[in-house]
Amino acid sequence: MKVGILGATGAVGREMIRILEERDFPISELRPLASARSAGKTLAFHGDQVTVREATDDAFSGLDLVLGAAENEIAKRFKDSIVRSGAVFVDNSSAFRMDPDVPLVVPEINPGDAKLHHGVISNPNCSTIITAVGVNALNSLSPITEMIVSTYQASSGAGQGGPVELLEETKAYFSGETVTPKVFRYPLAFNLIPEIGSQSTDDYTTEEMKLQNEGRKIMHLPEMNVTCTCVRVPVIRSHSISATVRTKDPVSPEEAREVIAKAPGVTLVDDLPNHRYPMPLDTSDQDLVFVGRIRKDLTSDRGLSMFIAGDQLRKGAATNAVQIAELLL
Amino acid sequence: MKVGILGATGAVGREMIRILEERDFPISELRPLASARSAGKTLAFHGDQVTVREATDDAFSGLDLVLGAAENEIAKRFKDSIVRSGAVFVDNSSAFRMDPDVPLVVPEINPGDAKLHHGVISNPNCSTIITAVGVNALNSLSPITEMIVSTYQASSGAGQGGPVELLEETKAYFSGETVTPKVFRYPLAFNLIPEIGSQSTDDYTTEEMKLQNEGRKIMHLPEMNVTCTCVRVPVIRSHSISATVRTKDPVSPEEAREVIAKAPGVTLVDDLPNHRYPMPLDTSDQDLVFVGRIRKDLTSDRGLSMFIAGDQLRKGAATNAVQIAELLL
Repeated sequence: MKVGILGATGAVGREMIRILEERDFPISELRPLASARSAGKTLAFHGDQVTVREATDDAFSGLDLVLGAAENEIAKRFKDSIVRSGAVFVDNSSAFRMDPDVPLVVPEINPGDAKLHHGVISNPNCSTIITAVGVNALNSLSPITEMIVSTYQASSGAGQGGPVELLEETKAYFSGETVTPKVFRYPLAFNLIPEIGSQSTDDYTTEEMKLQNEGRKIMHLPEMNVTCTCVRVPVIRSHSISATVRTKDPVSPEEAREVIAKAPGVTLVDDLPNHRYPMPLDTSDQDLVFVGRIRKDLTSDRGLSMFIAGDQLRKGAATNAVQIAELLL
Repeated sequence: MKVGILGATGAVGREMIRILEERDFPISELRPLASARSAGKTLAFHGDQVTVREATDDAFSGLDLVLGAAENEIAKRFKDSIVRSGAVFVDNSSAFRMDPDVPLVVPEINPGDAKLHHGVISNPNCSTIITAVGVNALNSLSPITEMIVSTYQASSGAGQGGPVELLEETKAYFSGETVTPKVFRYPLAFNLIPEIGSQSTDDYTTEEMKLQNEGRKIMHLPEMNVTCTCVRVPVIRSHSISATVRTKDPVSPEEAREVIAKAPGVTLVDDLPNHRYPMPLDTSDQDLVFVGRIRKDLTSDRGLSMFIAGDQLRKGAATNAVQIAELLL
């Protein structure tokens, strides 16, 4: 396959190239595309140096697949050119996720939806992928009706500059220097920022509403309601999620553990007496979503609480997109 | 008043001395007490150096008040000697909090309970104080029936060694050295640890159950149910809480903001369009609990979600204890 990467020089684009390589995706040509500013740079792929080209309307010709790792505006700008060129566009931006003509796919959950595409398939939001992979097995016992979720989101979710700024600020703390935040609105070192995304309805942020809106579409649960609080934490690259999940009928922690342990893409790490539970340092730089701390919700007999962690750049973005591409092979 | 501090050399004990000074608590004698190991050290108080004495059964004679900043075992060991000496014991340990003969007091919420003491008054758990101060005003509109809470707890909650270990680990990250965690079970730098306290019932931790059990007693809500997930985060000294709060009858975000803004001990910091919300760096080293991100709970018409932050060492421990002592003056 001839594969283009739109936004190849960003954090997610680079991770996509690494994961295509790692998973030995069958590629006859890799075409990294980015802004004029990045054109001419080279990126390593299977031992070769591949030159980045400028993304233009003509840059997609001959490609079979384009993985999108660019912002919404760039994705919108080039969508028609990509589809016209005959390539399938697997896009990580949020531009088309809620479009009824565009499948929104987590391969472990709704692989069949990928086949219904008309040229574009969207990759979901990172926290949504990690949460959905973690909880989806419960639907096999009884459908999820509500979730109350608080996130602990890593700096990597803000792109390449996120971890750089966090580490610079942290270093500056020790030297007594001051770093003016640019990527984040406030200092993130030894702090928390309870605002991710822009403002949506009812004083929620766009990031907070994605878990409900995208979660409904991925899990085919159009009536699921989700209350979500998204918080940026001084962690480098794994997102964690504290979720209270209610199902139509009660599910016991034992039943939940049994189906979650068998769910694709998940590792059950749930042994409080032996101090085993998901932690971001353990889930970084690998593809599995860790689920643990499963226990009864003390406020509802239809509820369970749990703690979930997964690598934001890999399963939360690049790996999921490459897995979607694998469904198309 | 003649005031003893039991556990005077720990993080909370030192903070208590600072706060007694700051609030100009009327003291004719300050008697810092600690283990034999710390006896002979000196602590600054109103410009003088006061010598730490060993805590023994006879060490409390003549005192009017003892502020307890020691562990459960030490609090239990000396309780009877303190009461026998005629002093009132305002204790920060969890040893007596659920004892029906011991008032558990947050002065902004249940000051009247302090008067019912028989020699011992307990200071609540730090996350519980901060959460209760933040949400209590809702009870004036309709009683709280349930809370679903995820905490973001600072390293200071583990005592003086907590921030030291976090900072050492963080420094070591940059120098490439490895620090073996001693205070925390796992590295906390750039990580999260979803276990605080020891194991309680139903796979909850003791720390997680405190919010329900102590919250019921403080707010006089014996039937309130709380599902809590406690997570240690790489923050130095303020705890934050993401809370979804359900009341008997629906309360609107506007009504909630109005009563919370007027509540004692609280600052409403709730303006998402202007990016104002509670953050641990802003709440550290002061006494007010910040509440913001107030919005509808999308999973219940009786619910509200909000984000709360407060200094763990001050309002979460030392300040609250000194405020209890002020009720006794």
